[in-house]
Amino acid sequence: MGLVKLNDLPQLQIADGVVARVVTAESVSVMHVQISAGSPIPEHSHHHEQVVNVIEGVLELTVNGVKHNLTPGKVMVLEPNVVHSSKAVTDCRVVDVFQPVREDFRGTSFAGYSQKD
Amino acid sequence: MGLVKLNDLPQLQIADGVVARVVTAESVSVMHVQISAGSPIPEHSHHHEQVVNVIEGVLELTVNGVKHNLTPGKVMVLEPNVVHSSKAVTDCRVVDVFQPVREDFRGTSFAGYSQKD
Repeated sequence: MGLVKLNDLPQLQIADGVVARVVTAESVSVMHVQISAGSPIPEHSHHHEQVVNVIEGVLELTVNGVKHNLTPGKVMVLEPNVVHSSKAVTDCRVVDVFQPVREDFRGTSFAGYSQKD
Repeated sequence: MGLVKLNDLPQLQIADGVVARVVTAESVSVMHVQISAGSPIPEHSHHHEQVVNVIEGVLELTVNGVKHNLTPGKVMVLEPNVVHSSKAVTDCRVVDVFQPVREDFRGTSFAGYSQKD
């Protein structure tokens, strides 16, 4: 797909205070996320492997009930179907990698995390 | 594999002025790269899909002979086997995503880009 300008992609509202632009390649989705301080993402799971890369800020990520404070330099690898949630301690900039592609992120809106897939 | 501290990973010398820490998940490799201004990565190709995310700086990326100046907000998706090279216009911080896993990045050193794979 070549060159992608993030601002040309739809801005997805992932949760209150959580907005993202998602680059959908052939085999992976790369999500550029901005999270406002204090904003939570509720507990959820999905069949994709996920790699969470905090670029700026502090993100409290809870994995199987265990809290981790992610900062730049700490990367979380989430196995498929693991239950996780997060809360931004500060404003955060995050790059999330998913494999396989997140089909639910292809559109112009996101249905939300009320259900597990 | 859970939580990974980048500083606990081997620092790979990708080229002169190009150092990286690579998170090897099950299905993808996520490479956190620091490139010094002026440093080139020679022309090469590989069978992995690659997504180039410039976090800071300006990276001149040449794809099939066409030059692109990547800055934060511009993401390049490279199809498998496409020939590419780069030169850092400024100091750069880059997150590269590869699928499948880069087996050649698993070790404590990197053999270099003198050969195509």
